[in-house]
Amino acid sequence: MTGSVLFSDIPVVSADETGVVTCQPHTWVAVRDGRIAAVSPTEAVARAALGREPDQVVNGQNRLLLPALANTHNHMAMTLLRNAADDLELHRWLFDVIFPREARLTSALVAAGSRLALAEMIRSGTGLSADMYYDHEETAQAALEAGFRLNLSVDAKREGPDGQPHPDPELLARSMRLLGQHPSGLLRVSLLVHSVYLYTEALYPELATMARQLDCPVQVHIAETQKEVTDCLARYNRRPAAQLARFGFFQTPTLAAHCVHLDDQERSVLASPQVLVAHCPASNLKLGSGLADVPALLQAGARVGIGTDGPASNNNLDLYRDMRLASFLAKGVRQDAALLPAPEILAMTTWQGARALGFADSGRIAPGWQADLQVVRTDSPGLTPLGNPVSALVYSASGSDVESLMVAGRWLMEKRELKTLDEEKIRFEALAATRALA
Amino acid sequence: MTGSVLFSDIPVVSADETGVVTCQPHTWVAVRDGRIAAVSPTEAVARAALGREPDQVVNGQNRLLLPALANTHNHMAMTLLRNAADDLELHRWLFDVIFPREARLTSALVAAGSRLALAEMIRSGTGLSADMYYDHEETAQAALEAGFRLNLSVDAKREGPDGQPHPDPELLARSMRLLGQHPSGLLRVSLLVHSVYLYTEALYPELATMARQLDCPVQVHIAETQKEVTDCLARYNRRPAAQLARFGFFQTPTLAAHCVHLDDQERSVLASPQVLVAHCPASNLKLGSGLADVPALLQAGARVGIGTDGPASNNNLDLYRDMRLASFLAKGVRQDAALLPAPEILAMTTWQGARALGFADSGRIAPGWQADLQVVRTDSPGLTPLGNPVSALVYSASGSDVESLMVAGRWLMEKRELKTLDEEKIRFEALAATRALA
Repeated sequence: MTGSVLFSDIPVVSADETGVVTCQPHTWVAVRDGRIAAVSPTEAVARAALGREPDQVVNGQNRLLLPALANTHNHMAMTLLRNAADDLELHRWLFDVIFPREARLTSALVAAGSRLALAEMIRSGTGLSADMYYDHEETAQAALEAGFRLNLSVDAKREGPDGQPHPDPELLARSMRLLGQHPSGLLRVSLLVHSVYLYTEALYPELATMARQLDCPVQVHIAETQKEVTDCLARYNRRPAAQLARFGFFQTPTLAAHCVHLDDQERSVLASPQVLVAHCPASNLKLGSGLADVPALLQAGARVGIGTDGPASNNNLDLYRDMRLASFLAKGVRQDAALLPAPEILAMTTWQGARALGFADSGRIAPGWQADLQVVRTDSPGLTPLGNPVSALVYSASGSDVESLMVAGRWLMEKRELKTLDEEKIRFEALAATRALA
Repeated sequence: MTGSVLFSDIPVVSADETGVVTCQPHTWVAVRDGRIAAVSPTEAVARAALGREPDQVVNGQNRLLLPALANTHNHMAMTLLRNAADDLELHRWLFDVIFPREARLTSALVAAGSRLALAEMIRSGTGLSADMYYDHEETAQAALEAGFRLNLSVDAKREGPDGQPHPDPELLARSMRLLGQHPSGLLRVSLLVHSVYLYTEALYPELATMARQLDCPVQVHIAETQKEVTDCLARYNRRPAAQLARFGFFQTPTLAAHCVHLDDQERSVLASPQVLVAHCPASNLKLGSGLADVPALLQAGARVGIGTDGPASNNNLDLYRDMRLASFLAKGVRQDAALLPAPEILAMTTWQGARALGFADSGRIAPGWQADLQVVRTDSPGLTPLGNPVSALVYSASGSDVESLMVAGRWLMEKRELKTLDEEKIRFEALAATRALA
């Protein structure tokens, strides 16, 4: 199922050992037992690392090889709500359109929407993602079937004897055992903390304590809109990131989505090795939420990845579009074309994103790393001439240029054909699920 | 060559007679002699308009029909400089990298680069474009071969007996006769006025007089960077748009590219029925030039189209990406998700853009209009569920979803295969041309 593969004479775009993304032309890459066995400018060296004839040789002509991309913020099953309500600001969109439809969701509908999202991500070069949604066990099952790496967040709240919601440590611990330690190595589990504005005050310190006690990562929305900040100041006399820190968060690995409206103090709170800011430029713009100041975050020392956010506010899961947008926005807003250059963007969406999702050995093409790889075709008019391959990937390419994608050495897409998912069945079931929600 | 075509039971996205873009499901569209003969919810009505069996029937299942897009600002042959220099601001990029390479351009190289741009645009649903570059006759020839509608700008300056550049009315008049009145109807001619900063002062009023006397449209860059504004204020004590008006421009149809840094007075100068602002969001961001305030322009009464700008500063000619970006930017910067909604963006890139390029009967799907049409496939995971088709086109689709494109009833691409251009030969010649410039 994961035979050995030799990528032959292909330019390799990857971070070097210092984390900087460059392109090495004319490279041979050997994959065996789900991992990268060798990366060499010499064919014989790569072949020797396999110890026998490769099961498959991929010819690198008119191709690039790079790591599978990592999407650091997503609500996968919201595919079912794509283009259902547009040109509306976040709070109207969420409370008037999205929440009423989500009230009709069932486990089966979530599974249908998640599978559709997996198909779309695989088709556009993404092999790893965060997910923050409902019915995480259904979604985990879908990811395992697809062979996709997923960091799932678990909604571990239960109504207590006092009628109030309280965290249930056993619910989370069980998911961490069952899913996070799944032998496939494809799954990681986080605690879902929607935002500083959705829960009763008493719940937050309890959730933070549980995360610390179980040493569990957290996925949380922070400072997505100005309204969130204003409301949080009114309620707690503190801004969202500062208030969440006060509640006891950020002491375990945290995926902090959005972070659009921050002050300097919050940026220094978030500038922790435990935290990755999941920058979602398309969604933030589309919902009129605003523009996250990524250069300021980086200057403060924060780690930043890129996320699509859910496909109902993007309205797409092609991370190539978000890479281009993230770079363009930083350059344009600051009027400095040197900001967020292409190599930095690719570092964010490969090893930096993968590490923050809990997959620290994915995102580089080097011996011993996971064979989470994609092949991009470069012979279309839109990639001719290719020029600098790193620039071409960020500024010219799109997800439709991805020809093949493997995760842990297993092809999820090969020559534009999905290998682990039945695309026709997925579309059929997703359309039925959409009708059930409308 | 342009046989009759019946589009059968297809949703049609087009402006209605008031100019507002909507989607009509289950429509039959008849095309004959290069024009739209009928648009009807009844098959028999559409068939009757053809008078005989259609030569071809296009089944509308899992498809959308919309007008070919119009790209209102481009430097086509700069495909050859794609990804050659990135993460640099405009003036360094232009003077240190682009101008030195352009000094090595020949007519043959421009033709090669222009053909590559045509292939890329056709592949992504664009059937009409402006072009501002050198060797316009070569480019015109390439467009005629491709069957593509082009508004070409002519550099009508010549060195005079005093050693200074002067406009040559005969050069422009000849191009207007030869090209602008070409029996194909595919070409329009404009006068090239690069910008307020590149020529000697005396030349501008002469160019403006020539444009008025010949009643010739103008293509010009305006207020692309803050530096342009600062320099113009220092030199003329007036801002760029105001100074160009003072020189005598804006009295013939004008494609005013960029318009990033404007004041209220300039916005009212540009709010003329003669002027279309060609908004180039990707290029303006990528070069760090800034963000054009399109909502303010529209509120001032200006007409706005969308342009890619040249493929060396985008780095792409897929206008779908620029549509999405234009809408997202306006929403995000103003923190108002209702701004530049999807129907308004599609109006800009169909009939409004086409009209400004001089093709007033292109850009709507209605009887008598040009059969400048594209078919988009909607059965990919990224367009499932489709939701609102107008939103889906702007927010979810990309140029790679375009299946077929016709201009004047002639297929330029059919089922992803170019019909008028030899793509392999174009790529080969473009790669050779790129090497010649490096």
